[in-house]
Amino acid sequence: MSLTREIGAVLDEVRREVAALHAELPRNELVVWTAGNVSARVPGRDLLVIKPSGVSYDDLTPETMVVCDLEGRLVEGERAPSSDTAAHAYVYAHLPEVGGVVHTHSTYATAWASRGEPIPCVLTMMADEFGGEIPIGPFALIGDDSIGQGIVETLQHHRSRAVLMQNHGPFTVGRTAKAAVKAAVLCEEVARTVHIARQLGEPLPIAQADVDRLYDRYQNAYGQR
Amino acid sequence: MSLTREIGAVLDEVRREVAALHAELPRNELVVWTAGNVSARVPGRDLLVIKPSGVSYDDLTPETMVVCDLEGRLVEGERAPSSDTAAHAYVYAHLPEVGGVVHTHSTYATAWASRGEPIPCVLTMMADEFGGEIPIGPFALIGDDSIGQGIVETLQHHRSRAVLMQNHGPFTVGRTAKAAVKAAVLCEEVARTVHIARQLGEPLPIAQADVDRLYDRYQNAYGQR
Amino acid sequence: MSLTREIGAVLDEVRREVAALHAELPRNELVVWTAGNVSARVPGRDLLVIKPSGVSYDDLTPETMVVCDLEGRLVEGERAPSSDTAAHAYVYAHLPEVGGVVHTHSTYATAWASRGEPIPCVLTMMADEFGGEIPIGPFALIGDDSIGQGIVETLQHHRSRAVLMQNHGPFTVGRTAKAAVKAAVLCEEVARTVHIARQLGEPLPIAQADVDRLYDRYQNAYGQR
Amino acid sequence: MSLTREIGAVLDEVRREVAALHAELPRNELVVWTAGNVSARVPGRDLLVIKPSGVSYDDLTPETMVVCDLEGRLVEGERAPSSDTAAHAYVYAHLPEVGGVVHTHSTYATAWASRGEPIPCVLTMMADEFGGEIPIGPFALIGDDSIGQGIVETLQHHRSRAVLMQNHGPFTVGRTAKAAVKAAVLCEEVARTVHIARQLGEPLPIAQADVDRLYDRYQNAYGQR
Repeated sequence: MSLTREIGAVLDEVRREVAALHAELPRNELVVWTAGNVSARVPGRDLLVIKPSGVSYDDLTPETMVVCDLEGRLVEGERAPSSDTAAHAYVYAHLPEVGGVVHTHSTYATAWASRGEPIPCVLTMMADEFGGEIPIGPFALIGDDSIGQGIVETLQHHRSRAVLMQNHGPFTVGRTAKAAVKAAVLCEEVARTVHIARQLGEPLPIAQADVDRLYDRYQNAYGQR
Repeated sequence: MSLTREIGAVLDEVRREVAALHAELPRNELVVWTAGNVSARVPGRDLLVIKPSGVSYDDLTPETMVVCDLEGRLVEGERAPSSDTAAHAYVYAHLPEVGGVVHTHSTYATAWASRGEPIPCVLTMMADEFGGEIPIGPFALIGDDSIGQGIVETLQHHRSRAVLMQNHGPFTVGRTAKAAVKAAVLCEEVARTVHIARQLGEPLPIAQADVDRLYDRYQNAYGQR
Repeated sequence: MSLTREIGAVLDEVRREVAALHAELPRNELVVWTAGNVSARVPGRDLLVIKPSGVSYDDLTPETMVVCDLEGRLVEGERAPSSDTAAHAYVYAHLPEVGGVVHTHSTYATAWASRGEPIPCVLTMMADEFGGEIPIGPFALIGDDSIGQGIVETLQHHRSRAVLMQNHGPFTVGRTAKAAVKAAVLCEEVARTVHIARQLGEPLPIAQADVDRLYDRYQNAYGQR
Repeated sequence: MSLTREIGAVLDEVRREVAALHAELPRNELVVWTAGNVSARVPGRDLLVIKPSGVSYDDLTPETMVVCDLEGRLVEGERAPSSDTAAHAYVYAHLPEVGGVVHTHSTYATAWASRGEPIPCVLTMMADEFGGEIPIGPFALIGDDSIGQGIVETLQHHRSRAVLMQNHGPFTVGRTAKAAVKAAVLCEEVARTVHIARQLGEPLPIAQADVDRLYDRYQNAYGQR
C-alpha cells in the first residue's frame, strides 16, 4: 500500500538517513553479516523506518527500507521488516522522546550481556555519554512484546541510553537515529575498555558527584550550538 | 581434461560464486595469508568447485578455481586443488543436503579447538544459527579420509553446522556455499564473544526449551521469503 | 575576528597540518566517533590550532580548524573549539619545548588509566620512545586548569612524552604535532602489548642501564638526519 | 657510490620486490608507524636491499630502498638504512640458505617475547609452518652484532623460521623475502591464537610424531609445484 503524498518527502528523507546510518554499523565493527539494525521515528506520525530482514549491508538503499506502524506491522515496502521490528516499535510507542533505536550484537557489550552484568561507570567518557552504569535488561524471547517491555522498563530507571538485554545484546536509543548510533558505538567502546581494564585488576571508581558533573556538562555544553 | 558443454554454463556460475565468496574470508578477518577455503557442490553432479592450493586471495578468479570429483581428484583446472579438498569431498559424498563447505583457522574458533572444548550456547545469536553448542571433532591428520570422517560423524550428532576440529580449526557447512560462509562468520563471532564473556566470569545459561524456540524461529521465519 | 595578514600563511600551513594529522587517529584505531583531538602551536605566537568540538573526522578540513590563545579562548574560526582546548593550551603555556599535543581515549591506554596503573617499561620499543614507564596523572574534571596542571606536573617528572590521566585517557606531547601523534600511536601499542604480556604471566624487566642506552640511541641516532 | 651496470637490472627487481613486500606489514597489522622492516639478499652478491630508517610505509618506493653490504654498511642509496640493518646483514652472512629477513614488533609475538616464553606447538597450522615451538632468542642491545648473533644461534637449533628476541620482538627468515613475510604473518597469527587458547585453560598437546608428519608434508607437498 502507499501513503499519501504529503508525507512522501519526509519519508524519503528518513529512508535516506536510516539507510546511510546502517553503514556506520560495519564501519564501527558493531556487526557481522546482517546482525544489527537502525530505525528512526517518522516525525509527527506513528510510523518508523527500519531495515528489511536478512539483507546485507552492502545491498541497503533508501528504497529497500521499510515503513511500519508502532505495533510493528508493515505499512510500506516490498520486503519483510527486520525481525527486531516489534522491539523497536514498542520503544517508540512508550518513550515519546526517542527518535531513533539501534540494535546490535557488538562483541564486548554482548559478552557483558551474556553474564547478566552491568558495566560500571569507571571512565570519564562513560560518565559523559551514559551518566552512570549501563544496565542489564531481562532475558526475553523474540516474537511478542517481551523484548520491547524489557528495554523500556530498564531505560526508565537509568540515565543510560543503552541497555544490555541478557544473553542477547545491546539496544540503544537517542533523540535522533544518529544519536542512537553514537550511543551504540560508545556502548561497545566502553564495554571493551572496562573489560580490558578488569582483566588485570579493578578500575578505580569515580565519585557519584563527579559522574553527575561530567554528565551534566556533556549533555549541555559539548559540541557546536 | 574438459567436461561436456552441457554443464559448462553451470560450472561457470559455480566458479564465479566460489571465487566471489573467498573474498568474504579476509573481509571478515577469518584468514591470514592463504589459510582458508570455500567449496560448492556442482548441482546434479558428483563434483565440487574449490580454491587452488597456496594461491593468494587477491589472485583468485573464477578461472583459477578447480573442479574435483567426490574423492577429491582433479577433474578440471590447471592448478593443484586445495590440500583440504579430500575433507570437503568426503563431506559432500556423505551429507547429501550439504551444498557448500568452508574451512578456516579463524582465531577464536581455533583457540577453542586447541583446547578441545566445545563452545556452550549462551547467546541468542548462537541459538538462532547453531541450535546449541558448537562441538569438537577428533584430532585427525591430513592425507586421507580422517578429517572428513571426523567432520561428518560429529555433525551427524549435532544441530550445529560448524565443527571445531581439535588443534586444527573450524569447518562449516550449509545448503549453499553462501550459507556455509555465513556459518563460518558467525562461528568466529560466537567463539570470540563467549571467550570474552568467560574471561571475567561465567555466562548465564539459556534454558534448552528457549534454545529450541529460538532455533526453530530463526530457521523458519527469518529473512525474506 | 581576523588575524593580521603577515601570519596568515603560517596559520594556513598549521591548519593543513593539524587537519591532516587528525586522519591518523581513526587510521590507527585510536578513536571512535569524535573522541580525540590533535593541536599544534603556531610558531612564534602564543596561539594554537585545534579541532572544533563534536565534529566528525570525515568533515574536518583546514578551514574548519579553529585558532585559540594559550588560555584556550577562541581567536579565529566559526566553530566552538574542542572541549579539551583548555588542557592543550595549558600545556603550551607551561612547556615551551612542546609544539604538538594529542588527546585520545585509545582502548588499552585508557584501561591502564582506569586502574591508575603506570605501564612498566618491558619492551625495547618502549625504552626507545618513552625512556621508561608511562606514568599516571591525577583524576581531574574538565572545566578549568585541573587537567592541564595534571599533565604538566606529571610530564615534568618523567622522560615519557605520554601521560595517562586517571579514569580518562592518554595525552601525548612532542616537539611537533606529528611527533605527538607518533607518541599517541606508540603509547596505545605498548599499552596493548604489555597488557597482553601480563595476561599470561610477568614480563621480564629490562635493566635501567639498558633502558637508558636504548632511549639515548633512539632519540639521537634513529631516522634520517 | 653506484654499482656496475651488470647488476643494475637485478637490483631494480629486488628493490621493487622489497618495496612491495613492505605493504604486507601494515596490511596484515604487524606494524604501527615505521616499526618493522623487510630485506632481501641480492642473488649472487654479498649485498642486501632494505628499508631506509624512520620512513613511513606510504612513502616507500623502489627508489627509496637502500643497498648495504653484509656488514650493514651503505653501498647505494641516499638515505640511512634501517637501524636494524646490522641484524639482517649478520643473518645473511651466517645463514647462506636465507634469502629474506623480516623484523616486526607484532603485538602478540612481542608479548610472548617480553615474558621470554617460547610459543608451544599446539596448532596444526603451527606444525605445518614452524615444525615445532617458536623459540626465544637472548636479550640483546642494538648497536653491534648481538642481535644478529642471537637470531642465528637460536635458529640453528630449531626448525622454526621465526625467533622471538626477548623483550624486543620477532625476526623471521625464508628462502625468499616473500617466504619471510609469510612466516612473520603466521608467527603473529599463532602467537595470537595460542595466547587466546591459554587464557581459558591449557591447549591439548600434539604428539611429536604428528608434528613431524605435518611439517614434512607441508614443506614438501603444499601449494603449486
